[in-house]
Amino acid sequence: MINIAVMGYGTVGSGVVEVINTNGARINQRIGDQLQIKYVLDLRDFPGDPIQEKIVHDFEVIVKDPEVQIVVEVMGGIEPAYTFVKRCLLAGKSVATSNKALVAKHGAELLSIAREQNINFLFEASVGGGIPIIRPLNSSMTADEIEEITGILNGTTNYMMTKMFYEGSDYDEVLKEAQDKGYAERNPEADVEGHDACRKIAILSSLISGQQVDFEDIYTEGITEITKEDMMYAKALGMTIKLLASSRRQGDYLHAMVAPYLLKKDHPLYNVNDVFNAIFVHGNVLGDAMFYGSGAGKLPTASAVVADVVDEAKHLHRNIMTMWKSDKLELLPSEDTKKQFFVRISGEPEALKAHLESCFGPIEVVQVEGLKQEFGFLTGVITERAYEENAKQFPGILHRIRVEG
Amino acid sequence: MINIAVMGYGTVGSGVVEVINTNGARINQRIGDQLQIKYVLDLRDFPGDPIQEKIVHDFEVIVKDPEVQIVVEVMGGIEPAYTFVKRCLLAGKSVATSNKALVAKHGAELLSIAREQNINFLFEASVGGGIPIIRPLNSSMTADEIEEITGILNGTTNYMMTKMFYEGSDYDEVLKEAQDKGYAERNPEADVEGHDACRKIAILSSLISGQQVDFEDIYTEGITEITKEDMMYAKALGMTIKLLASSRRQGDYLHAMVAPYLLKKDHPLYNVNDVFNAIFVHGNVLGDAMFYGSGAGKLPTASAVVADVVDEAKHLHRNIMTMWKSDKLELLPSEDTKKQFFVRISGEPEALKAHLESCFGPIEVVQVEGLKQEFGFLTGVITERAYEENAKQFPGILHRIRVEG
Repeated sequence: MINIAVMGYGTVGSGVVEVINTNGARINQRIGDQLQIKYVLDLRDFPGDPIQEKIVHDFEVIVKDPEVQIVVEVMGGIEPAYTFVKRCLLAGKSVATSNKALVAKHGAELLSIAREQNINFLFEASVGGGIPIIRPLNSSMTADEIEEITGILNGTTNYMMTKMFYEGSDYDEVLKEAQDKGYAERNPEADVEGHDACRKIAILSSLISGQQVDFEDIYTEGITEITKEDMMYAKALGMTIKLLASSRRQGDYLHAMVAPYLLKKDHPLYNVNDVFNAIFVHGNVLGDAMFYGSGAGKLPTASAVVADVVDEAKHLHRNIMTMWKSDKLELLPSEDTKKQFFVRISGEPEALKAHLESCFGPIEVVQVEGLKQEFGFLTGVITERAYEENAKQFPGILHRIRVEG
Repeated sequence: MINIAVMGYGTVGSGVVEVINTNGARINQRIGDQLQIKYVLDLRDFPGDPIQEKIVHDFEVIVKDPEVQIVVEVMGGIEPAYTFVKRCLLAGKSVATSNKALVAKHGAELLSIAREQNINFLFEASVGGGIPIIRPLNSSMTADEIEEITGILNGTTNYMMTKMFYEGSDYDEVLKEAQDKGYAERNPEADVEGHDACRKIAILSSLISGQQVDFEDIYTEGITEITKEDMMYAKALGMTIKLLASSRRQGDYLHAMVAPYLLKKDHPLYNVNDVFNAIFVHGNVLGDAMFYGSGAGKLPTASAVVADVVDEAKHLHRNIMTMWKSDKLELLPSEDTKKQFFVRISGEPEALKAHLESCFGPIEVVQVEGLKQEFGFLTGVITERAYEENAKQFPGILHRIRVEG
């Protein structure tokens, strides 16, 4: 018998209980032992819910019970999650979490405690919800040098971008719709400003580099400036616009960024629509791979959490090595990274082209029916710094969007 | 120091050597020890190749050397691979293989020997080449009951289907092109008749059921009957045609099949083109997920083999449990499975519709410009048996293709 405690009985927590109830027989067969939920920690009571008899309000009950071998943390936020998880690990209990904020900030430290205690700290659900990505990176792509990882890591914004692209809707319109459907929060900032995707790419960057990548160091731009006019240009270019979180090697450095990107039709992420997430990975020998699935949602997220619990149950007193040291990794500054840019500008191409090309090199002009007194153009591949410096000369620039690939 | 032997210095074998040479430092860091290739078994010599000094022609050298802890089998075929692998396992050496024929036929037995010896038999590269799928099924999707697994598992036929769809080419034309490019063998039977995909879905079916699924029991239909006219209908329907290998639960049974299918635009496999492979998985709590990448090729396949070697090096005397017993699983007979069918028939819809509907229920007629004296129709969801029995009444039927989803 393996006793576990679930900390937090919100959406994911109740999903974890449901997954264990639904698939318990199969799970026990895989573990080779019986998994039992002994406690559920929540400040609330749930009268009438069969879980009520397991509800405890005091964390001390869990951390002090030697029978509890695995703890699931699905409360979210940094505190008290951090204190609770750390104390559980120090008490010799493995922890599985879906908490991206906690992992991005304290992952290296919590992993090192788990290593010392010869137990495990796993967090598959913290990135990509139900999509297996952390474990494949740690245990499948071990023969590769990962050169790029680019993900659609936020379902809310992907739903919005999909609607804007396919239905020609306005940003405000789709935001309201996403809120009505419960995909976006009343205060949507964490999603639409890219903060959520930023935490996730920070975690993936730490894993592929083996060092601490601080999310504060990652240049992050949300989707709030994307308009339906931008989408009209995207269509004219045979592309779409997606919020991408990416991390890639450039020389000896890693460069990470969250921003809306124009994406070509033949890119594996092009067709990832609605609330789905996907993670594209390029390894130096593997080549291109992609992982696709539900990036959020009660049961998909709970499926990933419980899979971590199964792994921990199979490795009760044996650490599964994860390379993520606490030494901070210096990222390549954004200004030094090279990209192609798409730019919208007021005016007529005939009047501006020569001046634009004298600054940006050869450009490709794009015009869209119905959009008068402006046009778009694609630059060659230039540094962010070169773009910014030259852009100063053109007060008519309306918007610029990076181009992927 | 961990010594390994590579059996077979063909495409994948030389890829394995190249991957270890290229990424050795990173690989050693992940293992926490030094990986060294001690022997390469091949009947040939490779004068001038740095590998020559490691070439041995006699398998006994490898199996009798106690320093060899891990053996890579990339010879292909059943014999002598089976005898060699079995003897290595019995001698306490872990084995990593890319050999789908071997795994499909003897996987259960070889896994059980590895379990008894407390070592490992891993075969990530046997399905989907470089795409991580075996390990995710075994260690990531462990909280789920896998209800469906459907893959584009053969790159050659996917390249051909893609060309036929996008370029309107003939079957013979694309086959010749695939052969010229080296994607298809001179004798293309194993690919185009579906045998290759069949071995792979047999392996996946065994893994998701935990029992032996014999590939001989899987109904297999290749792509040789697919014509450019079929592709014209597919386009008219907003679908494409792909060779799918699938395994799904229907009630208490598993049903497996390899056949060309019409696939709708919103299916995650719709956009998997050229030689790429992808595997779609539906779990009862995870929902939909998909894994995409290079299904073959020297380096991607070698990447997966070496990742298995890394895993075996990290678990030298500890078996990683894989549930695949030798008890044979009885599959649901094809006749009892239900599907929608697309049918092409000679004649005019007006003359035949009433009779067709009296047999197949309500049908949806499809006509294609340029195809005279024939039309297509979609049936409702019916059993294969019902389809076959009713089809007998219509000698004008030209072709029938199953519809996915």
